[in-house]
Amino acid sequence: MKIQIWCWGAIRESFLKEGISIYLKRLQKYLSTEFVEFPPVRNASKLEVPILLKTEANVIADKIQTGDILITLDEKGKEMTSSEFAQYLEVKMGSGSKRLIFLIGSASGLDDSLLQISNDRLSLSKFTLPNQMVRLVFIEQLYRAMTILQNEPYHK
Amino acid sequence: MKIQIWCWGAIRESFLKEGISIYLKRLQKYLSTEFVEFPPVRNASKLEVPILLKTEANVIADKIQTGDILITLDEKGKEMTSSEFAQYLEVKMGSGSKRLIFLIGSASGLDDSLLQISNDRLSLSKFTLPNQMVRLVFIEQLYRAMTILQNEPYHK
Repeated sequence: MKIQIWCWGAIRESFLKEGISIYLKRLQKYLSTEFVEFPPVRNASKLEVPILLKTEANVIADKIQTGDILITLDEKGKEMTSSEFAQYLEVKMGSGSKRLIFLIGSASGLDDSLLQISNDRLSLSKFTLPNQMVRLVFIEQLYRAMTILQNEPYHK
Repeated sequence: MKIQIWCWGAIRESFLKEGISIYLKRLQKYLSTEFVEFPPVRNASKLEVPILLKTEANVIADKIQTGDILITLDEKGKEMTSSEFAQYLEVKMGSGSKRLIFLIGSASGLDDSLLQISNDRLSLSKFTLPNQMVRLVFIEQLYRAMTILQNEPYHK
């Protein structure tokens, strides 16, 4: 199974780029994981939010293939401890699906249509985190989950 | 009022250092904020966890002054949205205390005695985050809270 993290736009801040690449590299030992960065919608700042979200949702919906598992990361999703997340991941990995997709919304959020077609909604925190920092926090949790499942000490 | 973030040890990863210094700098416009990094307890890895935590707790308790507000950041604390945290901060800032201290435990956690003397316990996430990443996530929330209170757009 492949894990993909879908998100909008490239990382701007160099410190986030560096941090994400560190965890992404460590993670490859356990899991094939990649970020898929969609180009931001043109003139996004001039669009009304519902229209922007709908446009983004259409891009995403087009990329979903039969058999994909889609999980959205949004503040209103369910929260888990790191151990619970590790177990959750183990179940998904045993499901026979080829792609497990975690979708991070744009700064404007996620369209309801995506929440409806998603298999699950996860939340990292009740706090609103910067869209780009979510990538760092989440990839670290993926790595942590794998060390939990492999019963390995966490590499600090 | 001064905000201090108390924690153990210097930041090792350069990307975290960079990220934290970016938010710390932005934050000074609104709030006098500093990190106070206590030197790690000697031979910490050879001590049993309860003894290590007790040793750390003694260091912390020694530094607390009358009138300080002490808030621990730990997974079992209460979670808030960013807006709730901003309001929470506003109340604390209006309390007349000179120091508002947020305490991040070491990788081993926090001794019960500290949880008992603390004025409050906050949690950033149900996930276990790396001790050093907590500093980044938290300083960003402090900055976000100030932009919320000042009704300013968040500087992306």
